[in-house]
Amino acid sequence: MAEFKVRFDSHPEPIAVPAGTLLVEAARLAGIEIQQPCGGQGRCGRCAVRVESGPVRRRSVLRLSKADIEAGYALACQTVVEGDAAIVVPPPEAIQRRLTTDQMAPEAAIPEGYAASDAQPVRRIALRLTAPSMGDQTDDWARLCTAFRRETGIERLDATLNQIRELGALLRSCDWHVALTFDTSPAEGARLIRLQPADRAAEAPLCGIAIDIGTTTVTVWLVDLLTGRVIRQASEYNQQIARGEDVISRIIYASKGDGANELRALVVGTINGLIEALCKRTRTAADDIVKATVTGNTTMMHLLLGIPAESIRLEPFVTAINHVPRLSASDVGIAIHPSGIVDALPGVASYVGADITAGVLASELRSSESLTLFIDVGTNGEIVLGSSEWLVTCACSAGPAFEGAGVVHGMRADKGAIEEVWIDGRSYEPTYRVIGNVAARGICGSGLISLVAEMFLTGLLDKGGHIDQTLGTSRVREGPRGVEYVVAWAAGTERGEDIAITRVDVDNLLRAKAAIYAGFNVLADSVGVPLETVEQVLIGGSFGKYINVEKAVQIGLLPDMPWEHFHFLGNTSVRGAYLALIDRAAREQVETIASAMTYIELSADNSFYEAFTSALFLPHTDLSRFPSVEAAMV
Amino acid sequence: MAEFKVRFDSHPEPIAVPAGTLLVEAARLAGIEIQQPCGGQGRCGRCAVRVESGPVRRRSVLRLSKADIEAGYALACQTVVEGDAAIVVPPPEAIQRRLTTDQMAPEAAIPEGYAASDAQPVRRIALRLTAPSMGDQTDDWARLCTAFRRETGIERLDATLNQIRELGALLRSCDWHVALTFDTSPAEGARLIRLQPADRAAEAPLCGIAIDIGTTTVTVWLVDLLTGRVIRQASEYNQQIARGEDVISRIIYASKGDGANELRALVVGTINGLIEALCKRTRTAADDIVKATVTGNTTMMHLLLGIPAESIRLEPFVTAINHVPRLSASDVGIAIHPSGIVDALPGVASYVGADITAGVLASELRSSESLTLFIDVGTNGEIVLGSSEWLVTCACSAGPAFEGAGVVHGMRADKGAIEEVWIDGRSYEPTYRVIGNVAARGICGSGLISLVAEMFLTGLLDKGGHIDQTLGTSRVREGPRGVEYVVAWAAGTERGEDIAITRVDVDNLLRAKAAIYAGFNVLADSVGVPLETVEQVLIGGSFGKYINVEKAVQIGLLPDMPWEHFHFLGNTSVRGAYLALIDRAAREQVETIASAMTYIELSADNSFYEAFTSALFLPHTDLSRFPSVEAAMV
Repeated sequence: MAEFKVRFDSHPEPIAVPAGTLLVEAARLAGIEIQQPCGGQGRCGRCAVRVESGPVRRRSVLRLSKADIEAGYALACQTVVEGDAAIVVPPPEAIQRRLTTDQMAPEAAIPEGYAASDAQPVRRIALRLTAPSMGDQTDDWARLCTAFRRETGIERLDATLNQIRELGALLRSCDWHVALTFDTSPAEGARLIRLQPADRAAEAPLCGIAIDIGTTTVTVWLVDLLTGRVIRQASEYNQQIARGEDVISRIIYASKGDGANELRALVVGTINGLIEALCKRTRTAADDIVKATVTGNTTMMHLLLGIPAESIRLEPFVTAINHVPRLSASDVGIAIHPSGIVDALPGVASYVGADITAGVLASELRSSESLTLFIDVGTNGEIVLGSSEWLVTCACSAGPAFEGAGVVHGMRADKGAIEEVWIDGRSYEPTYRVIGNVAARGICGSGLISLVAEMFLTGLLDKGGHIDQTLGTSRVREGPRGVEYVVAWAAGTERGEDIAITRVDVDNLLRAKAAIYAGFNVLADSVGVPLETVEQVLIGGSFGKYINVEKAVQIGLLPDMPWEHFHFLGNTSVRGAYLALIDRAAREQVETIASAMTYIELSADNSFYEAFTSALFLPHTDLSRFPSVEAAMV
Repeated sequence: MAEFKVRFDSHPEPIAVPAGTLLVEAARLAGIEIQQPCGGQGRCGRCAVRVESGPVRRRSVLRLSKADIEAGYALACQTVVEGDAAIVVPPPEAIQRRLTTDQMAPEAAIPEGYAASDAQPVRRIALRLTAPSMGDQTDDWARLCTAFRRETGIERLDATLNQIRELGALLRSCDWHVALTFDTSPAEGARLIRLQPADRAAEAPLCGIAIDIGTTTVTVWLVDLLTGRVIRQASEYNQQIARGEDVISRIIYASKGDGANELRALVVGTINGLIEALCKRTRTAADDIVKATVTGNTTMMHLLLGIPAESIRLEPFVTAINHVPRLSASDVGIAIHPSGIVDALPGVASYVGADITAGVLASELRSSESLTLFIDVGTNGEIVLGSSEWLVTCACSAGPAFEGAGVVHGMRADKGAIEEVWIDGRSYEPTYRVIGNVAARGICGSGLISLVAEMFLTGLLDKGGHIDQTLGTSRVREGPRGVEYVVAWAAGTERGEDIAITRVDVDNLLRAKAAIYAGFNVLADSVGVPLETVEQVLIGGSFGKYINVEKAVQIGLLPDMPWEHFHFLGNTSVRGAYLALIDRAAREQVETIASAMTYIELSADNSFYEAFTSALFLPHTDLSRFPSVEAAMV
């Protein structure tokens, strides 16, 4: 097969590749990492490069304008080499890393009335064994088990071969006075985690971690298991982001070549980096962390554990496993004590994962007498409706519009993002607030919600989401992607380009909000209660931190009800993991929640499509559902 | 530090080593393997080399005669280099390998009335799962577990993370019609071994192996788990032999440097070589072997599992573990199906291991109403006295004299070994039988027993084991090692050297037999029954295959009782493993046997020393204990 030379601007030597090689592959050979948030499907356009010379074939130009192509742009994930070529890689948008370690969020409070001595399933006990003698030649392991049984009343203690290998030397090194750390679970009994000399253990910390693996952000809480106190917390973007921004892209990436191992290494690397940072800042030894309770959506859990996730994506959307048995840290690769327990919380379905069961736990929905709606809007929207007696749940494929993807000037809620917009009803001139008070770089989810709400209330948008071109403002214009409304003129932006929202962007946002609102409807219908009877709305997830409820109601994303019915709970997923880590009753309750939840598959539900279609309007086809919005429009 | 050059006759280049290097280490650097059966303690003399030139320092010359030293001999394990030297390594005695695979021993018979369908703890069941659909999105693992529970009534099935990883692809590859192989144990529940497409499994074999790890010989039986039939068996010297002939030497070897890993690799290599040979000969796929039941003495079990064995050797002689939990083949390194179960049978004490509990099981001692003595004489002598109601046991440090070690012309029961001797009472001329009908090379254990018995009955030996030098035969002479009796003149031997037994050899044999006989006494005394009331003697171990009971009684090794009381059971250890492999009731019985056995530590028992001293005579101080011998002497 013919071989061609590809030269990259940032690399001194041309790379020899066979005909038909993708530009991303050639770049990788040159050691150049091109980001592929969509997983190499040609959907996101983030891997665009400029072909300076040489014949290439573009398999797909979906995300490129005619002008782009004329300027030589090509999607590296979709373009194959057909001769010697010279390529310019534009500087990638570096993902800004945020570490939120220094402030203690209110969700990290110890539950009222909590007593670790009763509730903590991990225990460390000191055992003073009788030393063996010619009159008592009991083997080391039986000697330990007998003392353990006497002290705890627990019949059986499980240990690994490696732990048995280390037993004899340890017992003798501490003169048979040993501290034994073990975990208990109702399903699986007691499991040995660690043996230490008792005198050293007496002063040593006993820690655990709660891990929430978000598609975008990974959060770790370091917890003192002796008191239940959160010592410190840290968050970091999930390093998998560079291989796909949403779960579907990641699943596709994982299914190709060594993708699954790569994604696994990336998330394990993220987690271990956070653990290392937490240990360093708190002077904790990683070996003193003996348990990790993990939550995350179903795809994140599968990818972490190296379990193929492909079936999650394909009809009938089935997971490999929802209830994972207890694993050891060395099996999973998490850098705590190697025999530490990894307890993956149970999920319910492909798109309602452990993050939601943990979230429901943290929300205390189950101890509420009122009819409650629990929402976690992230890359997907998961919704739970229920009370102490029953729970129904569904997942809305809202898409990542609220995270800024699928919107031309969309971005994550980072520095430079427009996070709130106000529009003057006569001049149609906007004012806005930018995160970090810098020049604007794009619009994040909360900014988009408030922008659409303002445009609707000022008449810039009609019920159907069409931009009114007859209002005589220069902010509405025909742009390269159709009609658009300019939020920020080039002079006030970081890149010196106008920031605008297009008709297509509005459509994407309407579809996302309609999917979520339709989910509310289907859940309520499925149990035969009117949506209006919901007494409280609990909002979890990072999205809930930034959202403006009034605006969200105005676009028809959230149901119209008095403000005091809404509660923002922050990261309920990590708090659920924390509660399951520190409290055996809470751990059992997650299990009950997972089993009790009735999952409704929206894609198999005709009523969902009806509800979705009705919700594609601003705020809704049936305006009577949104009395406060109707009032504001008058 | 000074560096010296050591030249070996078989190696082209001199080796540079620092001063103080042991000759064995220098040899190893030259790629020359010098056998050290005693583990490098200078006890066996097998590593003797000849120093042609150069200064060396001999730390120990225990096993060298004055003549040897004058001829330049040195023990490579005890001699350090102190200048440039030239060394001649005598050709090592190659260990002859025997493979006993072609004849089916009687002990391999299926127990009467055995029905695998009831008794076999491993099961393979076919499950036809309902394929998932939009109406049934149960996860793969729960789907499998539910079908499993319905079919078997067993609540919980344990699986490893790796098995869960492979689950989804497998279920889909066989259209949800799957064969599930699992093991059950009362203590640990059901454990998943293997999933296969059901159609392929229907025809596939389902095999297990019983493994007996002897200090000298490893035996493996390949068993059809569907019927309980022994398909084939194979034995091979334990490759650890080159690192020490007895358990003590091996423990010492294991405690130095990387010795434990080396010994582990050697025995795993031996086992895997046997499995490979069995698979090849029977056209069995290793993956179709799903369980290994393992027995062996306590040291062998520890070394196999990589558990430090040092405490076995040191007072108070305690093991790390007697009851090992079920392990997986990949953990242990045994080359069957990687998720296959490794079931190590329980031992009782440092010197009464799983080989003895398995032996007692195989001997059916527990179902006997009679007072029974069970003996397994190998490198050590383990004895069990009991009946269906109680069991006492002890281990006699008989040493390896009966395996030919510690005796100048001693050797194992290999080709060239004198295995039986008869002496003419008037001429004192011997006749003998040699294994393989070849020129004699040495004397094996059974040969030594018959030789000593004949010498005693003909008056060549007195009660105290002294050789009578007054009988006027040229066969009795003063040799380089003291008084000796020549069994074979040089002309009739393989090496052209006289084969003789010395006074020291006789002493070693007397000590070995006295230790065992004293063990009988202590056991009988400990439960207050006279030894004479024993109704049957069951002899296990390979030693039992060759022993001549009459001769063994004559030297006072076995108690004097009618011949019909003796039963030879062959390798009871491997048969016990086989029974535990095929029958869950037998497996539970081994557990009961291990728990029921009262272990008596002889080294802490004063009555043992008295009994031992009394038994150091031929046949015994108290001749009335040996009426048949008394009669033969008249």
